[in-house]
Amino acid sequence: METNIEESIKTYGKKIDNLLKEIIPPDRDDYLSEPIWHHLRTGGKRIRPAICLITCKELGGNPDEALYFALAIEILHNMFLLHDDIEDEDTMRRDQPTVWVKYGIANAVNSGDYLLARAYQSILTSPTPIERKMKLLEIFTLTYEKTVEGQALDINARGAKDFTVEKYIDMVELKTGYYLACGMVGGAVASGNSDGTIDKIWKLGKLMGPAFQIKDDLIDLTKGKGRGGVIGSDIKEGKASFLYAYTSEVANEDDKESLIEIMAKQREETTENDIKHVLEIYKKYGVMDCAQKYADDLIKQTYNIIDDIPTNNKTVFKDIANFMTQRMS
Amino acid sequence: METNIEESIKTYGKKIDNLLKEIIPPDRDDYLSEPIWHHLRTGGKRIRPAICLITCKELGGNPDEALYFALAIEILHNMFLLHDDIEDEDTMRRDQPTVWVKYGIANAVNSGDYLLARAYQSILTSPTPIERKMKLLEIFTLTYEKTVEGQALDINARGAKDFTVEKYIDMVELKTGYYLACGMVGGAVASGNSDGTIDKIWKLGKLMGPAFQIKDDLIDLTKGKGRGGVIGSDIKEGKASFLYAYTSEVANEDDKESLIEIMAKQREETTENDIKHVLEIYKKYGVMDCAQKYADDLIKQTYNIIDDIPTNNKTVFKDIANFMTQRMS
Repeated sequence: METNIEESIKTYGKKIDNLLKEIIPPDRDDYLSEPIWHHLRTGGKRIRPAICLITCKELGGNPDEALYFALAIEILHNMFLLHDDIEDEDTMRRDQPTVWVKYGIANAVNSGDYLLARAYQSILTSPTPIERKMKLLEIFTLTYEKTVEGQALDINARGAKDFTVEKYIDMVELKTGYYLACGMVGGAVASGNSDGTIDKIWKLGKLMGPAFQIKDDLIDLTKGKGRGGVIGSDIKEGKASFLYAYTSEVANEDDKESLIEIMAKQREETTENDIKHVLEIYKKYGVMDCAQKYADDLIKQTYNIIDDIPTNNKTVFKDIANFMTQRMS
Repeated sequence: METNIEESIKTYGKKIDNLLKEIIPPDRDDYLSEPIWHHLRTGGKRIRPAICLITCKELGGNPDEALYFALAIEILHNMFLLHDDIEDEDTMRRDQPTVWVKYGIANAVNSGDYLLARAYQSILTSPTPIERKMKLLEIFTLTYEKTVEGQALDINARGAKDFTVEKYIDMVELKTGYYLACGMVGGAVASGNSDGTIDKIWKLGKLMGPAFQIKDDLIDLTKGKGRGGVIGSDIKEGKASFLYAYTSEVANEDDKESLIEIMAKQREETTENDIKHVLEIYKKYGVMDCAQKYADDLIKQTYNIIDDIPTNNKTVFKDIANFMTQRMS
């Protein structure tokens, strides 16, 4: 069944790519196409929009009715990447210089703003009945807003002194949860068979978001985040990860103090020894195992919610939940 | 009649301020309220939203039906100020440090993003029939998009070698034109009496935008732009002004070359002598008089369009056009 999801993602991905070129033409002489397509050409598997179309189809709808909304999600995702790279001062993405590095902060901020405008235009031009279209605009705006709220918590939790697992969960529910669920919610709305499903899918997002994010936090310590395979870039960044949150709660005063001190350092001041030291602290308290268990438990909880979704094909939702929390990084 | 407009702006301004506090509560502990209200507290006369409500009323509608859209325009305006200050590296606004200076670029970018989300939410929660609401969302998105397109041209025209009056007009039609007209367009739609008016009001914007912007460019050379009354900050910035565009076209090679050289300099490298030299070049070619005439001519053209708008009260549109091109800076 997972193979089916991967196949669907490939098929739908091509549809999305074609519409993307229509909604954001790659070769306009407007100082927007160039930075935006510099970013878009670095890749992207179109997983988020594909999940939207799969959901629409599985609930008995016509995926073409969800296509413009699905594209809007993909555009929103890329808008966030553009702005987040500025906010996080990330200089490389998928082995290319980030937009702000190549085109300057002014063009990067403005290009992100333009992407958002095009995302809204995509939904507005969608050939969907007006009531459904309004619902899609509400879902999109809610997702956009909550993700920004989560990002605000994230930015300001870096190297924070009083960070907790509870604060971490609040943050990632906002920053990642709406984001992961909105494709499914929009797919359900576009199918016309959304009665009784929407609230449950949002709840799914509140579990999948943290599950996905915790696994993403772990990847930084195991295989690195694809920026040259370097381990511990979240530590350099002082990122408010699950590992940081959990350790802040359970470590003794000495360990907690050295952890916070290292996390609060500027990226360029963090040494390799600092990273090793943090990894030792994490190991001492078994933080990685605990993170893995916490994420697995969240995924189990998603199954209970999926059992409540009024659809004949619950397998597809379970496959999506597994896929999105395990394969996306 | 102009006094009436000023009075209406005051009355409506209070309504807008009250709703603003509802849509963006000032005292939330979310790392967004604080930077946003740091900016919002520096002032703002709520002219744009008030013009929207005046238009709605004059066309026979109920201004309360336009209120949430009017607020969205005000929020959009402030979102652009937040992002523009980052893009232009402006450190002060209305005698206060700009948001990016006080709270960092990350929080400033993200706070701007949040404002936009709240602007859309404001329209979405508006108690307006669904067809009108969808139209308002289209008008808002179009305005947002075109303004960003204009900003892209603006950023990249700084110190440009081949700048022309035509390019300047294209840029400010986008960057300022939609922006000035959208309140009136939205007010017309919300009134329910928009037949035959919308296209004409957009055209009005395409004249008012450049007229307003040319006058704004002149202010920088006469009384300064309210940042400590310093003259010539557009020259320091290398801003693509009407004066720069016109002079690029009419000046001899020597003057053109020194002009471009000074405009292309980094802000901190531009000396007082540089500014004096540019002012001398402008005087030599009578650029200021020409700019004034060009703007006056645009305003005359707006009257012809207003005569075509199917309403009994054309005076109010003329007053608005005058007010918005003369009083807003």
